[in-house]
Amino acid sequence: MKDFIMKTSSRNSFPGKVTAILPGVINDEIEISLENGDKVYGQITRSATEKLKLSKGGEAVAIVKSTEIMLATETEDYEISCKNQFSGKVIKLVRGFVNGQVRIQTASGLELNATITLDGVNRLKLERGSNVVALFKTANVLIAVKK
Amino acid sequence: MKDFIMKTSSRNSFPGKVTAILPGVINDEIEISLENGDKVYGQITRSATEKLKLSKGGEAVAIVKSTEIMLATETEDYEISCKNQFSGKVIKLVRGFVNGQVRIQTASGLELNATITLDGVNRLKLERGSNVVALFKTANVLIAVKK
Amino acid sequence: MKDFIMKTSSRNSFPGKVTAILPGVINDEIEISLENGDKVYGQITRSATEKLKLSKGGEAVAIVKSTEIMLATETEDYEISCKNQFSGKVIKLVRGFVNGQVRIQTASGLELNATITLDGVNRLKLERGSNVVALFKTANVLIAVKK
Repeated sequence: MKDFIMKTSSRNSFPGKVTAILPGVINDEIEISLENGDKVYGQITRSATEKLKLSKGGEAVAIVKSTEIMLATETEDYEISCKNQFSGKVIKLVRGFVNGQVRIQTASGLELNATITLDGVNRLKLERGSNVVALFKTANVLIAVKK
Repeated sequence: MKDFIMKTSSRNSFPGKVTAILPGVINDEIEISLENGDKVYGQITRSATEKLKLSKGGEAVAIVKSTEIMLATETEDYEISCKNQFSGKVIKLVRGFVNGQVRIQTASGLELNATITLDGVNRLKLERGSNVVALFKTANVLIAVKK
Repeated sequence: MKDFIMKTSSRNSFPGKVTAILPGVINDEIEISLENGDKVYGQITRSATEKLKLSKGGEAVAIVKSTEIMLATETEDYEISCKNQFSGKVIKLVRGFVNGQVRIQTASGLELNATITLDGVNRLKLERGSNVVALFKTANVLIAVKK
């Protein structure tokens, strides 16, 4: 399902297999395991779980917009609530007037793109090679499956 | 309630009538039917449903930030989890350094504004007239009512 | 926990004490009371509440990305669903090509940063000193605690 990446405005499309479904009343939490062993968690409505016919072992893509990804540094002393946390290095950085676009690569080879404010880029002193953690909430993850 | 559109920073303000309320524990899912027949779904806290005194048939406005809207093309072969999906054509496109602002119009006349990365604009090869699907999650929809 | 503010890409980091936990099935709603009396509400997964060992009276930081904050004016006649609503004045405004960065200060001294479209800046006629309400959903709030 790698071609799916080319079909949405978000580069953050992570194909994998559904490895857990935690059911709620309105929302279910879905665990998607990527080929490299990384896990991405999404929260979608129960009716979406049914519409997509999600089940353990099935293929699915987790998608998140770059605007939903926050970056942090020196997080060792903190616990942060969101389940999707990826440590990596900045491999690309584009500065706009208001926002910066930051590409991160994890040790496991995963790439994530975050759009943060230029103010944030400056305060975190980000540059190519900087160590950083990418954070995003399960609520901000979309899930897609092939029909 | 059309004047409401001018009072938030988001152009994506959709006035309509509440046509369904699906109650959860912490969150309720609200269906708002627009005059043109389109439906927008929002997920708000139960306490908000009560504060707003939402009930079937009442007027309400669904609001979503342009940063929360993802765009996709060639989605025919996929099922995507989010309930808010609108097919349309690009009618306006502004390119910044990092982001692009894309206005879409559906066949039913609905207009939506999405802020996506310039990278996304380029990969999807968006231009005026391009066919595109706008996607946003119920969790990212705010709901407002007149007092 | 004020030093935490410097370690994420978001300036919107609000240290305080947990004053209420409303449990759900998948998500819990957490109320964080700031030193100045303001309250910020976040919705995190139940498992995150446990991982962070959140309990009443404990210190915690609520964090929200500037892209998640919507601005509105003349809201007196409306009820809006989101629990996080802060009235204030624009104290700084940076215009990009597509987006604008708006800093707001409340009467209680709280500062919030919103990234909205330039289109939104113009339609709301924002400038330094403008009265504005900053709105963000509980679903978009991350919570962090010191280990």
